Amino acid sequence: MKVLFIGDIVGSIGRDAVEKYLPRLKRKYAVDVVIANGENAAAGRGITQSIYNDLLQMGVDVITMGNHTWDNRDIFEFIDDADYLIRPANFSPEAPGKGMVQISKNGVTMSVINLHGRTFLPPHDDPFAKADELIAEAKKISPLVFVDFHAEATSEKIALGWHLDGRASVVVGTHTHVQTADARIYPGGTAYITDVGMTGPYDEILGMTKENVIYRFQTQMPQRFEVPKKGRDVLSGFFVEIDDKTGKALRQERIYINADYPFEA
Amino acid sequence: MKVLFIGDIVGSIGRDAVEKYLPRLKRKYAVDVVIANGENAAAGRGITQSIYNDLLQMGVDVITMGNHTWDNRDIFEFIDDADYLIRPANFSPEAPGKGMVQISKNGVTMSVINLHGRTFLPPHDDPFAKADELIAEAKKISPLVFVDFHAEATSEKIALGWHLDGRASVVVGTHTHVQTADARIYPGGTAYITDVGMTGPYDEILGMTKENVIYRFQTQMPQRFEVPKKGRDVLSGFFVEIDDKTGKALRQERIYINADYPFEA
Amino acid sequence: MKVLFIGDIVGSIGRDAVEKYLPRLKRKYAVDVVIANGENAAAGRGITQSIYNDLLQMGVDVITMGNHTWDNRDIFEFIDDADYLIRPANFSPEAPGKGMVQISKNGVTMSVINLHGRTFLPPHDDPFAKADELIAEAKKISPLVFVDFHAEATSEKIALGWHLDGRASVVVGTHTHVQTADARIYPGGTAYITDVGMTGPYDEILGMTKENVIYRFQTQMPQRFEVPKKGRDVLSGFFVEIDDKTGKALRQERIYINADYPFEA
Amino acid sequence: MKVLFIGDIVGSIGRDAVEKYLPRLKRKYAVDVVIANGENAAAGRGITQSIYNDLLQMGVDVITMGNHTWDNRDIFEFIDDADYLIRPANFSPEAPGKGMVQISKNGVTMSVINLHGRTFLPPHDDPFAKADELIAEAKKISPLVFVDFHAEATSEKIALGWHLDGRASVVVGTHTHVQTADARIYPGGTAYITDVGMTGPYDEILGMTKENVIYRFQTQMPQRFEVPKKGRDVLSGFFVEIDDKTGKALRQERIYINADYPFEA
Ligand SMILES: [Fe+2]
Ligand SMILES: [Fe+2]
Ligand SMILES: [Fe+2]
Ligand SMILES: [Fe+2]
Ligand SMILES: [Fe+2]
Ligand SMILES: [Fe+2]
Ligand SMILES: [Fe+2]
Ligand SMILES: [Fe+2]
Repeated sequence: MKVLFIGDIVGSIGRDAVEKYLPRLKRKYAVDVVIANGENAAAGRGITQSIYNDLLQMGVDVITMGNHTWDNRDIFEFIDDADYLIRPANFSPEAPGKGMVQISKNGVTMSVINLHGRTFLPPHDDPFAKADELIAEAKKISPLVFVDFHAEATSEKIALGWHLDGRASVVVGTHTHVQTADARIYPGGTAYITDVGMTGPYDEILGMTKENVIYRFQTQMPQRFEVPKKGRDVLSGFFVEIDDKTGKALRQERIYINADYPFEA
Repeated sequence: MKVLFIGDIVGSIGRDAVEKYLPRLKRKYAVDVVIANGENAAAGRGITQSIYNDLLQMGVDVITMGNHTWDNRDIFEFIDDADYLIRPANFSPEAPGKGMVQISKNGVTMSVINLHGRTFLPPHDDPFAKADELIAEAKKISPLVFVDFHAEATSEKIALGWHLDGRASVVVGTHTHVQTADARIYPGGTAYITDVGMTGPYDEILGMTKENVIYRFQTQMPQRFEVPKKGRDVLSGFFVEIDDKTGKALRQERIYINADYPFEA
Repeated sequence: MKVLFIGDIVGSIGRDAVEKYLPRLKRKYAVDVVIANGENAAAGRGITQSIYNDLLQMGVDVITMGNHTWDNRDIFEFIDDADYLIRPANFSPEAPGKGMVQISKNGVTMSVINLHGRTFLPPHDDPFAKADELIAEAKKISPLVFVDFHAEATSEKIALGWHLDGRASVVVGTHTHVQTADARIYPGGTAYITDVGMTGPYDEILGMTKENVIYRFQTQMPQRFEVPKKGRDVLSGFFVEIDDKTGKALRQERIYINADYPFEA
Repeated sequence: MKVLFIGDIVGSIGRDAVEKYLPRLKRKYAVDVVIANGENAAAGRGITQSIYNDLLQMGVDVITMGNHTWDNRDIFEFIDDADYLIRPANFSPEAPGKGMVQISKNGVTMSVINLHGRTFLPPHDDPFAKADELIAEAKKISPLVFVDFHAEATSEKIALGWHLDGRASVVVGTHTHVQTADARIYPGGTAYITDVGMTGPYDEILGMTKENVIYRFQTQMPQRFEVPKKGRDVLSGFFVEIDDKTGKALRQERIYINADYPFEA
């Protein structure tokens, strides 16, 4: 199975970048399944039902979330019916939605799991224990397991990557909005990257208008963080080909498309 | 001026990697000046006088530090005499050492500045204000200015990068120990990368034996974090060519050398 | 000079408690000057011009603030004209407003200083250095100096208390909304209490409806924190008599009024 | 049952204060059971077997711990045999020791539970869920339940207090080392205090030599925090009388003994 993951989609520039590049990427990599992190899809804050539908329409198969899951209250209306939207599995048992889903293409099934880090972040349930539990469950269905670990600290993400080596097919990090260069396949067969990076405005700060963010750092004064609607874009992704029988990653490739690193067909 | 920066050197594997690759890198890039972050050079915790001397001997011209500056108390003995060792300039005025130094090669002088972030980190003095102050000072000497911003959050690092665009020749981030893929030259002529990444053990977690770090995340129990002495290495660097007249960056290149991304001459 | 300080006034229950008890307290203690923390006066979030005026009307002479200073955007409209409203002095030089004011009664003048902590809080300017600077300035005017240190950690508050012992007449902590029992006069003559506590709803959590706060701790799900408008009240205060000549505290008394500790005339 | 709780015992001054005042307090309050927090008993860092034995010898029946539980590695040697030492119950299942114990006096049995907060602290297991689980278990044995919640934030402590109102006999907070003045009995019959405060050096900062702590706040430079061996002491405690039949608190009293608030027989 050939899987493409797209990092945190931020606002309309991010959604437009998906629309623009996804067909080309699907062609280039003969992609079977597309997963995308959508926690910032609605103007930087959460996701709406119409954006969820639009992304599926564009060819995204599964959408993962993160700390911004509940930012747009529209989600409480549609999450129960959104079969292919998952939010971190180690959120409270009280939280609506689910943290794992199966996706099948061409007779091959893969489980997709979303988890949330705890370093510099709220005290969600233990992501290491939850990963162990869900992977055991997923393995009963098929050997292909994809994990999006939404976390801040490099140490926590690398730790989960090594912890799942040989058990997950892919572990990607999201949340910092900056792609890391450390993509590799661990000895046990798990493709890993610390952070896939974001998909949205290229010349701002994590997708937010840079002047406001800089002013906030300089003054600690409250600033409204806005996602601009115009400007150059970046798409950050991660491609992995997984062995359908073993669930091991066969090859991986970082995808980073913007004015400085243009798309090559 | 052609400048090579080497990211956080961790322990003996890191120092050996510098010794092994630095001559080849100097040749490949015709490097004039080598800067390296040495905050983890002594078994992961600070630096000693003998390691400082060794690194200069290997061809490093300037050493920068970070949150681990004072971990090895040897530094209090030699920092006052270590002309080419700088620690974050926005440390307290009470802290020994200095945060900026000039290095000259072939008649060209460049200022090197070390700064420390504050997001998820202790409340040091304002790095944005300190950067403004030191760059103004540096510009009186020469237009070439190199900044190592040792910080955790991607937002803070990108904010400083944009803030200094057109004023610094280079802004590199350090501290997360994972290289980012976002190296670029900003419109104003500042070469930028969010994190250069580390130089040391390749198959561990930020250079620390992975079993202990994973166990800590799983249990919150105290663990002694050790830097292994054997194993495969990684060298993370950043090369920038700077215009001697304008101080603008002319070209940049990420350097990431390990078993998965072998050195190419 | 006899000074009464009232801790964080929260919402309408808090303002009503001031209106109810302030006349009795003024009588009981023959109070000359009343200072109150008003950062939560407007429904828990900041302060408005009309509330500022109301509090002065009730007999408050100086209002101090904290991390909620900018929560209600009305403040940007009137802070420049609000002579007796101060916000933390170690906020950015870019922040509107001021951090110190003088108040005179019966021919005696006292400086009132507001400072903000940094432990578990944003990286404002150094409160210790700012305290030294402002107290030196204040001493040129009169020996009476009152400090409201709005901070989270007990260690940081006690440290500032000892640091200012003999130089400030009074150092009170605010922000945790729970009164501490450690009121005392330090050997150098500074009256000190780690936290004065809050003035507002008595049967809630820091003044916010308790069900929502508990649910948030149980689930990490977003919750709207509301200040109730009905229910029993608490008033938390601190009384200090200061020697007009030396600025030393002569006696101090905790004030804690609620259903369990009723007011005694 | 008449229960006396003694807050965080810090170093030898703290242990000596227990030795000096405990007999008088037992007499004054006709105490049946003594519980003490011992996380700082060994020079501020953890506890040793000999100190554990000494405290039992002095009349302490149960010892609770906190974030400093593992600071002195001696604990790993004796915790399995220390029947009356408990550490936070929401520590990892991998952690040695236990988080609840029963103590019986005069035919009455009470469960003692130790829990750890998560705000500004590591991500231990959910203390609210763990409290619910252990109290249900405890109630099968007897209606008397005592909870020591070792936590930083006032909000988290008050939230747990209200959450357990009517189910626990007593909920005390520890960890901030400063006694709060808010002791009360909640409507459901749970005696509550946000923090009992510490037992140890009176003229320092949380029991640590104040000069070093102040210097750390001023400079962010590393400082060795030491517990002095000489100086005035403070004992902080909380007395509660519990109805043996219902487990409801009948009366409570803060105990705060030091040079400013001397012991009264
Ligand atoms: Fe995120
Ligand atoms: Fe995001
Ligand atoms: Fe670092
Ligand atoms: Fe480092
Ligand atoms: Fe407040
Ligand atoms: Fe506050
Ligand atoms: Fe303690
Ligand atoms: Fe503690």
